[in-house]
Amino acid sequence: MGADQGRFDLTIRGGTVVTADARFEADLGIRGGRVVQIGGQVRGEREIDASGKLVLPGGIDAHVHLTLSDPPGDSGEPRWCDDFHSGTRAAAGGGITTVGNMTFPHPGQTLRAAIERDAAEAERDAVVDVMLHPVLTDPATQPLGDIPALAAEGHTTLKYFMSFGGFRTDPEAYLEATRLAAGAGMLTMVHCEDAAMIAHATDRLMAEGHGAIANYPRSRPIAAEVSATARAVAFAELTGAPTYVVHLSSAGALDEVRRGRRRGAHLAVETRPLYLYLTEERFAEPDGAKYVGQPPLRRADDVVALWRGLANGEVDTVCTDHAPWRYADKVVSGMDVTTIRPGVADLDTLLPMLYSEGVAKGRISLHRFVAATATNAAKLFGLYPRKGTIAVGADADLAIWDPALTKPVRATDFQTNADYSPYEGWEVTGWPVITISRGDVVYDNGRVTGSRGRGTVLRRGPTASL
Amino acid sequence: MGADQGRFDLTIRGGTVVTADARFEADLGIRGGRVVQIGGQVRGEREIDASGKLVLPGGIDAHVHLTLSDPPGDSGEPRWCDDFHSGTRAAAGGGITTVGNMTFPHPGQTLRAAIERDAAEAERDAVVDVMLHPVLTDPATQPLGDIPALAAEGHTTLKYFMSFGGFRTDPEAYLEATRLAAGAGMLTMVHCEDAAMIAHATDRLMAEGHGAIANYPRSRPIAAEVSATARAVAFAELTGAPTYVVHLSSAGALDEVRRGRRRGAHLAVETRPLYLYLTEERFAEPDGAKYVGQPPLRRADDVVALWRGLANGEVDTVCTDHAPWRYADKVVSGMDVTTIRPGVADLDTLLPMLYSEGVAKGRISLHRFVAATATNAAKLFGLYPRKGTIAVGADADLAIWDPALTKPVRATDFQTNADYSPYEGWEVTGWPVITISRGDVVYDNGRVTGSRGRGTVLRRGPTASL
Amino acid sequence: MGADQGRFDLTIRGGTVVTADARFEADLGIRGGRVVQIGGQVRGEREIDASGKLVLPGGIDAHVHLTLSDPPGDSGEPRWCDDFHSGTRAAAGGGITTVGNMTFPHPGQTLRAAIERDAAEAERDAVVDVMLHPVLTDPATQPLGDIPALAAEGHTTLKYFMSFGGFRTDPEAYLEATRLAAGAGMLTMVHCEDAAMIAHATDRLMAEGHGAIANYPRSRPIAAEVSATARAVAFAELTGAPTYVVHLSSAGALDEVRRGRRRGAHLAVETRPLYLYLTEERFAEPDGAKYVGQPPLRRADDVVALWRGLANGEVDTVCTDHAPWRYADKVVSGMDVTTIRPGVADLDTLLPMLYSEGVAKGRISLHRFVAATATNAAKLFGLYPRKGTIAVGADADLAIWDPALTKPVRATDFQTNADYSPYEGWEVTGWPVITISRGDVVYDNGRVTGSRGRGTVLRRGPTASL
Amino acid sequence: MGADQGRFDLTIRGGTVVTADARFEADLGIRGGRVVQIGGQVRGEREIDASGKLVLPGGIDAHVHLTLSDPPGDSGEPRWCDDFHSGTRAAAGGGITTVGNMTFPHPGQTLRAAIERDAAEAERDAVVDVMLHPVLTDPATQPLGDIPALAAEGHTTLKYFMSFGGFRTDPEAYLEATRLAAGAGMLTMVHCEDAAMIAHATDRLMAEGHGAIANYPRSRPIAAEVSATARAVAFAELTGAPTYVVHLSSAGALDEVRRGRRRGAHLAVETRPLYLYLTEERFAEPDGAKYVGQPPLRRADDVVALWRGLANGEVDTVCTDHAPWRYADKVVSGMDVTTIRPGVADLDTLLPMLYSEGVAKGRISLHRFVAATATNAAKLFGLYPRKGTIAVGADADLAIWDPALTKPVRATDFQTNADYSPYEGWEVTGWPVITISRGDVVYDNGRVTGSRGRGTVLRRGPTASL
Repeated sequence: MGADQGRFDLTIRGGTVVTADARFEADLGIRGGRVVQIGGQVRGEREIDASGKLVLPGGIDAHVHLTLSDPPGDSGEPRWCDDFHSGTRAAAGGGITTVGNMTFPHPGQTLRAAIERDAAEAERDAVVDVMLHPVLTDPATQPLGDIPALAAEGHTTLKYFMSFGGFRTDPEAYLEATRLAAGAGMLTMVHCEDAAMIAHATDRLMAEGHGAIANYPRSRPIAAEVSATARAVAFAELTGAPTYVVHLSSAGALDEVRRGRRRGAHLAVETRPLYLYLTEERFAEPDGAKYVGQPPLRRADDVVALWRGLANGEVDTVCTDHAPWRYADKVVSGMDVTTIRPGVADLDTLLPMLYSEGVAKGRISLHRFVAATATNAAKLFGLYPRKGTIAVGADADLAIWDPALTKPVRATDFQTNADYSPYEGWEVTGWPVITISRGDVVYDNGRVTGSRGRGTVLRRGPTASL
Repeated sequence: MGADQGRFDLTIRGGTVVTADARFEADLGIRGGRVVQIGGQVRGEREIDASGKLVLPGGIDAHVHLTLSDPPGDSGEPRWCDDFHSGTRAAAGGGITTVGNMTFPHPGQTLRAAIERDAAEAERDAVVDVMLHPVLTDPATQPLGDIPALAAEGHTTLKYFMSFGGFRTDPEAYLEATRLAAGAGMLTMVHCEDAAMIAHATDRLMAEGHGAIANYPRSRPIAAEVSATARAVAFAELTGAPTYVVHLSSAGALDEVRRGRRRGAHLAVETRPLYLYLTEERFAEPDGAKYVGQPPLRRADDVVALWRGLANGEVDTVCTDHAPWRYADKVVSGMDVTTIRPGVADLDTLLPMLYSEGVAKGRISLHRFVAATATNAAKLFGLYPRKGTIAVGADADLAIWDPALTKPVRATDFQTNADYSPYEGWEVTGWPVITISRGDVVYDNGRVTGSRGRGTVLRRGPTASL
Repeated sequence: MGADQGRFDLTIRGGTVVTADARFEADLGIRGGRVVQIGGQVRGEREIDASGKLVLPGGIDAHVHLTLSDPPGDSGEPRWCDDFHSGTRAAAGGGITTVGNMTFPHPGQTLRAAIERDAAEAERDAVVDVMLHPVLTDPATQPLGDIPALAAEGHTTLKYFMSFGGFRTDPEAYLEATRLAAGAGMLTMVHCEDAAMIAHATDRLMAEGHGAIANYPRSRPIAAEVSATARAVAFAELTGAPTYVVHLSSAGALDEVRRGRRRGAHLAVETRPLYLYLTEERFAEPDGAKYVGQPPLRRADDVVALWRGLANGEVDTVCTDHAPWRYADKVVSGMDVTTIRPGVADLDTLLPMLYSEGVAKGRISLHRFVAATATNAAKLFGLYPRKGTIAVGADADLAIWDPALTKPVRATDFQTNADYSPYEGWEVTGWPVITISRGDVVYDNGRVTGSRGRGTVLRRGPTASL
Repeated sequence: MGADQGRFDLTIRGGTVVTADARFEADLGIRGGRVVQIGGQVRGEREIDASGKLVLPGGIDAHVHLTLSDPPGDSGEPRWCDDFHSGTRAAAGGGITTVGNMTFPHPGQTLRAAIERDAAEAERDAVVDVMLHPVLTDPATQPLGDIPALAAEGHTTLKYFMSFGGFRTDPEAYLEATRLAAGAGMLTMVHCEDAAMIAHATDRLMAEGHGAIANYPRSRPIAAEVSATARAVAFAELTGAPTYVVHLSSAGALDEVRRGRRRGAHLAVETRPLYLYLTEERFAEPDGAKYVGQPPLRRADDVVALWRGLANGEVDTVCTDHAPWRYADKVVSGMDVTTIRPGVADLDTLLPMLYSEGVAKGRISLHRFVAATATNAAKLFGLYPRKGTIAVGADADLAIWDPALTKPVRATDFQTNADYSPYEGWEVTGWPVITISRGDVVYDNGRVTGSRGRGTVLRRGPTASL
């Protein structure tokens, strides 16, 4: 045995390692940013005592918005308030070691230009690793030929919206884009809401004097999500494209996915924390605007359906759609269903809330928790086996988790620039205490220790089946 | 008893009267174009001996194309070959006493102008009665305000296509049109096929060198119909509009209707004879182009599903989408999936084929036959109780039916200007021998006796539930 | 014209005739117990002025219990309180001209003996016509060979229970019985509740001290109905037997029927008035026992599903399962879920309640009302075209209906021996004012005028499709 | 570092470790029958070179029949031909390190006595580890009180058949048994086929002279499986019992599970290799009897549905229902559907066939293969985390797998006493070369090296969610 055997840059000692399919007590030896040894005796430059803690794969939140230059627009309008720096600090603080950013081209910009733009920002600012998802908003000015080229460079996702932009008037181009993406091994991510139904419902509410935020769910009805999901599933069938439904929010939309899977479509489902914990009655609160996302919060039976789907494995991932606001920008007097500002900060709370409401309350197993927050995303987004589990050779992306730590959600504790949480005051059991990214401790008991710019833009392989 | 009691303009003696819910032997007395007495003793100016025959309500074919100026266009291109004269002669010859014409505005024409145009043509030419369905093809040039106005004048239907025209780029306008139609008591008729999916599938076939007619079904895949049907159902739910799915062709699309009904949507389903008798293998025949309609012929299991739906009452009507061609125009050497000419003549054969394949072969009851070819359409299209059954006070629209007459389908026997039938040579049992429209014998054993222009354009009431 | 033409035993003048597919103003001429003439001029021995009234086919309630010797048993226990006399008086008073009695063999009795027993009672006592349904409760003592023999004699139904009796231990014999019934043209009627699930649920409630009537629905859970319905549907598929699900009460059970129909099974669905108007919260009332039937009242969403199914034609008939009790016998202090006495009187209220809650409130069309209360049952039970509609040659079974008459439900107004109604005090619009059975006025404005024994036991043909 | 660190009883060097959620290159160090170290440097008493090989968790086949004294009975009739010795040799040869035996009480025997009987046999004979599943065949003689007692002793499953035995006449007792099992943390395993439907269908075939083996599928129709599955799902809902459907064979039955899961039932699905590779046409082969299992082989669309379910995770496990016959006993001249001998040997072929047809052909991922053959069963059957994955502290149950080895199926190569394989001659890619049970090499390149009696009867914990 060589002299350096058993010596590591970092060791995690005494913890319980948990993956999507295993749970065992073992020490970990980390060298060169990777896990090198599991079990046996390890000794390191730095040793972390994980006694009484869980050692989890670092979370992968495949759906965030960290580009300040993005919507909602320009010229003095307030915007989302996290950039790659503050946003990835929030990730680190929440036990998340990879985020997937929605990269929107600016007007006239190509997909490639947008990716280059965000890649530069992310390389400069990020504290943890970053995936970039090019968002096709206007096929007229965003050449589809960029799609396979981006895949070749490791950006193996394509995102589009059915709810706005070019899809409304040229859905055929999106079929072609989806086909090209599939041919290049990419995963197509779709926001499924029918633009025409939303516009009609919103117009009717306004025309009838029912534009108040309390009626927000009626402006984006479940039928609009269900119908669009059915159409996205049909697109998946027609093109053979592996398709990922983002932030699915309703029982009806999940039924459409079930039906598609039964017919053989390759579908993955993401839901969003909001839809697991809150229902539409919230919008009637005086500052109900603070809960506004797209789609809206749904009904109690939708919540039940999503938890069942998560427990059964029908829901593959839980991601935040983190789109943070300062409260004063988000909740504005006189807002109506046409002027709401969608988006909620959730990077700091994704893992603790899901652990607390899901695992601690017995709704899902600990393994399903890991699968839904790390392993499944790693496979779907072409990061596997480098990320998403704890394995020899994999990146040492880890969350040291205290399953017994109970404390309330307090926005003031968090790293995001957002200054409120939709869960403010909820008692939560289970928090990350240390977060490790490629062997570096990037978060340690309340303090972000990862340096700006240490995060990298990930070059990914093709999407893989679970 | 007054001297004129028991004396009628016309009597039908000795037949078996059949309606959607009754079957009995009785004589009919007709006066002033209406049935005045059922049973008892009748004596008339003219007496028809219906011994051994069935006396059925005249058929209502709510879906035909009899406007020569319609698509496929202008400038020397061949066109559909029946006008209101030849088309309504074909109706009379087939036991049909009411047809519903799709009235397309010419470029720049409003819905009202199109209706006025076709009303003039129909009043001039028609042999039996005519409904006119305004077709919304371009909301930009066809003001939606015409919709309630047309309803007020008795044109209580609105037709639109999801497969082409303005719907592709402005579906929201169609939601508004549907809402207005519903508010005016109208029935919205929808052609459910997803334009983008059709375009994509067609492009792919052409790009891959598979444009031959044998591949026609792949150019308009079932998924395109199913997905569009689901969307039309969602539109119906969102607006509360009674919605009539035209020429539904697949088991999957019928499932979407079932699901919508379960959720409380007001839906009616039409199928088309082609889909009950023929399957997609036909397109591989040397002159397979002759079977081309939109949607395409489907698979054997779709045929089974449609028959079951018809037997169960889930399919409400069987209508032709009569769009006749001369064979030489329809079947052209070198045609591919982009140059096909859709449409098939079926007015002469609608009732005999359905009786023969449905009633005589035990697939549906005689009452279901009457319901699907007359009574249901009368209710749905606001003609009831004036038409659609045999009742005191109702129009004397009757088909004297020989249930034992067996003869082959021969296009040369028919009244349509089309010179071929997709069923050429099929042995058919059950044919109309006399057709009576408002008390006039308009067809008598092979000869059309109704005069040109005796047909009227019907002013209809609101759509009614079955 | 012969001297006697136009002279009738009875005429109905000035009314609006309504059938399942027609509505028109016409006089009716009746002779020899049959409708002979519709429209034209009629003059009769007796003339009824039906101005402002509807003239409907007399109701057919295919599901009643009028055999005093039936369950719940013997030896001093209280029993259902209507016999063929009082029960058919209640029918006449409620506009019903045909009832279908469940004829249970006594211990050791054969099906044939039971039918002969009830036939004798009915011929002696009945005021309107009676169908007898042999109930197979014990294949060990009731030879299956009686089944085709009974069909040959015009008793073309076979009823069985999945919830008790021989089915529990010998379901295979019921498959054989169903097969024999189908071969003889019979309709098989099935009470779909899983006996084992009921027993288990009841035992658990009792063991846990939750036996109070308020928990009655939990003792016969929806899952027990849904599961048994699925099994009955499978039996129908396996044997090809036309199958009629009695008193279907839940959305889930209706889904099972939908699925069966989609697969091609020949299924008909009956629901029961209780399930359309009342929900399970009723059982928590102090005398909630008065609402107890089998299955229990269900939830609000089940009620919605049944109304939708009725409007859509998925529910074919509404029948009472009339099983009347005196209040003092039905509501007994200390009762629990094991000692409840199932059954409710509903013959007097079937038609008025359904008209008032269904037609007058716009939930179903007038035609659907007629179909569900007369026409569909006539076809399904082999009475057609003799009964179930108003047609020349058909029995003159009629209800003269005042659609404007509004009065509260008062058990004291009714003919049944039951002394309470579950709808006591409900304001109901639409009541029969005169009931006519085979040309005899059997009920006239509050008074039963039909004589005891004038009713006949009907000999029926094979079941027919709708 | 202590002197013995890094020294192991056994090391596996150079292989690619594959689990349900990970794939990585690492050496394994094994000590005391357990995996102690993954990665890093290991040196052992014995070293296995796994270069170019996969290192998989040993298979868990939860469904086998290795009790010679079991059905089909006694007195000279031929029987299944593997005991715990030959059967677990076949397991070892097939890469399987745990089998789950169906332990039927003999007539009059209690569940506990049966378990004790088989435990003694297994401890004496088994080469790999054994779970014992008590089979409740007669609640009248098998006291239900044994159920929680057996759970307390580590036998945390209860199996029953809906297709024969006590369930037919006393299903209520099975509800109670299921309830008790759930309360004790047990998994209930159910054979879902409706006994009455099978008996009826079989009787009809025989009566009509269609008893030949070619008609075997008609004697146990899909409807019998679908219906029973629906009922088992309802039992699961009523009792809250985690329920495992054994050898699910049809698309329709899988639909029932989907529907149950959607309603919140805790369900797991096993399918069987036969149903993934073969269709019902096989029974028409001259010796079609050799394929006979219960349920029968199904149709091509069922096969597609099962593969999709496996790929999606809707099917949790693939187990053999290994019930081996000698060809001469299995295929007997003159057999008909009443005299067939059900059961097929599959322990030797379970893993290679699934790897070859599933992983190598791209139908399922390598991870799904591991999950379906090891990890999921470990969790469901209370063996986790001791078995089912490769983790520090877990039993060193491993299959060294050659993914490139291609050879035909030859029954003569196998360890089972059965002398034919239903897949004889199929070219299969991917075979185990070495099998390790708790650190012992029990199979090595064609030779079983594990000693008789080294296997243990496993004491298990409660069933766990996936």
